[in-house]
Amino acid sequence: MNIVDIIIKKRDRHKLTREEINFFVSGVTDGTISDYQTSALLMAVFLNGLDRDETFALTDAMTHSGKTFDFSSINGTKVDKHSTGGVADTTTLILAPLVASCGVPVIKMSGRGLGFSGGTIDKLESIPNFRTNIDESEALQFAKESGIVLMGQSDGLVPADKKLYALRDVTGTVESIPLIVSSIMSKKIAAGADAIVLDVKCGSGAFMKNEKDALELSKQMTEIGKYAKRKVTAVISSMDQPLGMNIGNSLEVIEAIEVLKGNVKGDLYELTLTLGACMLKNAGKVLSIDEGKKMLEEKIKDGSGLNKFRELLIQQSGSDSVVDDYSLLPHASTSKTVYAKEDGFICGMDTDLIGKASVATCAGRIKKEDKIDYGAGIIMNVRIGDKVKMGDKIAEVFSASDEKCEQAEKLILSAVHISKNSPDIPKLIKHIIE
Amino acid sequence: MNIVDIIIKKRDRHKLTREEINFFVSGVTDGTISDYQTSALLMAVFLNGLDRDETFALTDAMTHSGKTFDFSSINGTKVDKHSTGGVADTTTLILAPLVASCGVPVIKMSGRGLGFSGGTIDKLESIPNFRTNIDESEALQFAKESGIVLMGQSDGLVPADKKLYALRDVTGTVESIPLIVSSIMSKKIAAGADAIVLDVKCGSGAFMKNEKDALELSKQMTEIGKYAKRKVTAVISSMDQPLGMNIGNSLEVIEAIEVLKGNVKGDLYELTLTLGACMLKNAGKVLSIDEGKKMLEEKIKDGSGLNKFRELLIQQSGSDSVVDDYSLLPHASTSKTVYAKEDGFICGMDTDLIGKASVATCAGRIKKEDKIDYGAGIIMNVRIGDKVKMGDKIAEVFSASDEKCEQAEKLILSAVHISKNSPDIPKLIKHIIE
Repeated sequence: MNIVDIIIKKRDRHKLTREEINFFVSGVTDGTISDYQTSALLMAVFLNGLDRDETFALTDAMTHSGKTFDFSSINGTKVDKHSTGGVADTTTLILAPLVASCGVPVIKMSGRGLGFSGGTIDKLESIPNFRTNIDESEALQFAKESGIVLMGQSDGLVPADKKLYALRDVTGTVESIPLIVSSIMSKKIAAGADAIVLDVKCGSGAFMKNEKDALELSKQMTEIGKYAKRKVTAVISSMDQPLGMNIGNSLEVIEAIEVLKGNVKGDLYELTLTLGACMLKNAGKVLSIDEGKKMLEEKIKDGSGLNKFRELLIQQSGSDSVVDDYSLLPHASTSKTVYAKEDGFICGMDTDLIGKASVATCAGRIKKEDKIDYGAGIIMNVRIGDKVKMGDKIAEVFSASDEKCEQAEKLILSAVHISKNSPDIPKLIKHIIE
Repeated sequence: MNIVDIIIKKRDRHKLTREEINFFVSGVTDGTISDYQTSALLMAVFLNGLDRDETFALTDAMTHSGKTFDFSSINGTKVDKHSTGGVADTTTLILAPLVASCGVPVIKMSGRGLGFSGGTIDKLESIPNFRTNIDESEALQFAKESGIVLMGQSDGLVPADKKLYALRDVTGTVESIPLIVSSIMSKKIAAGADAIVLDVKCGSGAFMKNEKDALELSKQMTEIGKYAKRKVTAVISSMDQPLGMNIGNSLEVIEAIEVLKGNVKGDLYELTLTLGACMLKNAGKVLSIDEGKKMLEEKIKDGSGLNKFRELLIQQSGSDSVVDDYSLLPHASTSKTVYAKEDGFICGMDTDLIGKASVATCAGRIKKEDKIDYGAGIIMNVRIGDKVKMGDKIAEVFSASDEKCEQAEKLILSAVHISKNSPDIPKLIKHIIE
């Protein structure tokens, strides 16, 4: 078999065989296929697509390109959740302890933020001493003891994806549905979960800008789930505005704790309960999403979600004192209030720009190597539909310097649109695909 | 400017600006754009195309990616010829001295063979001591003295093409008309010719298998010629069978000398006269192709073509004794006759397979690094339309070992098709586009 023949085959719109896809993925993994040949094939795949069989084969090959985790020795259905990435998207920190407190083991592997999207691992690492580099045996031990593990991506898991993603990122081949599907699903399957809930974001602050693409992505991922004998549910939710009000690592940890304490409702709370309920349903704990939401609400009310979060912090070397004293979390030295420039209704937000404003405060990264400032970020004060007067506070920006605060302020002002007429409020949950 | 944005633009079928194309070509040339980004863009260009403006801009940028030759101090219109590559395609060795003997300066830069296509430089180097590494100042001196120079590709000329072609070759992006056009035309324009005749091969032994593609390629090249203020004519000719009867380096030198001596006619003779006549016409020496052909026939009859060939040999350190004594050329130690396996008419040839049979004798290369055997090759005894009986000789194979001869024999037998019915003879010259 020859990689040039495989490139030409896909270039000419022919279907690749499972053997050809295996040859490609193993060559990428062991380095026998050069980066320039890989990127030529990635572009051909981007433009000519992969059908269902090819996407299944690619996902399979990627899943088995490295080690896979085996958590079968833990009782119960192990559930995982994945978000395609958004702004103020703090659901994991809330739903993982809530679901675990219902007796369903949550072993979740998370990533770091890049560009306008935040990452759970960064948020967790803003908690002093919290440790995310957990290996398989430690994860197994934690899951057995507490029923909850939040960990960084393991190096040995799906090495093909690391190489492919790094190339896609610099060759304009990121937004390809079969490539996204195989990247996400191979990692989730290799990580050993029995059931997976996918939070597919859609809107100005998401990867998928339109509902049609989000639906197609969701459909393909749930199909692959069935094929791989995993219970998969995809929830398509709005990223037309930041999900929560806080953006930035320690700021989002605070908002998550506030939700667990029962002090904060709104979209973040709503979506978290829906995703958590899907996890409970896929784990066979409840029969309906509504029943799941009620169970989770109970876990907030009786404090068992917050207790599970404390247990997680202590288990992974963090201090649970942060739950009671937010001043123990990193905080920015400077802040700036952003005021509305006119009267009217908040009618829309360029959410990716708000994510970029957060990057400007150094709460996020442009490149993988960038250092982040855990205390930096933004607290939004408005949501779409809110009525504001000129001079009303619409956001507060936190960072290490006035200059960064001003950069972020400018971006927020250009991102938040005000009109004379009351707008339609974007629907938070657009579809649930099982 | 950012290469990822340029890749995404072409990926999404938008038109690239001249500035973007310049940025790409200069980045490829100086190595600031990585090979994997270049190959992603090449695949996007392959699949989404380049329009006329983009192809012009690419050709321009490539032409100026290195040094360019200036032969304006030589009197007269300097003419060049380029073949897209074929089997037994020995026209240069004949037409260059013939055209030069008419008083039109021929400064021709040629390449080496690769795959089933032969290369003029290899053929010339089969002549003992013949030197092809001629620099610009020496070329200028030779052109002034003799009116003829045959030289290898200069290193400094169109460095962007060297990098792009090396990548295209291993990423399945060779057969793209805008990429072929810009590659050929940038080299011809940078080499300083005022008039160019393109020999576009079409058929089983050519790069372009069908007439539609050959026409499109020819049209685009003549358009670029006009844009670059070069007189360009494209001749589309058949490669449905080897052009001459001899395939292999010293064997083709012999056939070329035989044509110059007036001993051999046929397709090689016909096409050479047509191409040469187009060169004379573009140089303003004659008013019509017919007039040009007559002038060239005269130069064969009166021996001035052969004399110019002798002058070329001596000028470039070769010995002109080979003209009178072919035994001074390299020859193979072993030979094998290939016999027809049945009665009938020669109805078709897979010319690329015959080219590959020549490679099997070591007359050609598979990879650029391969050494070649100058004496090896094939003499064909039949052409399409010939009647044969079982046991008739259809070819003779020459190489350094019986094993290689047998490999070549098998390929020839599978390439030469015999049928009961008399076939149509492929038309040699299909189109002339001015």
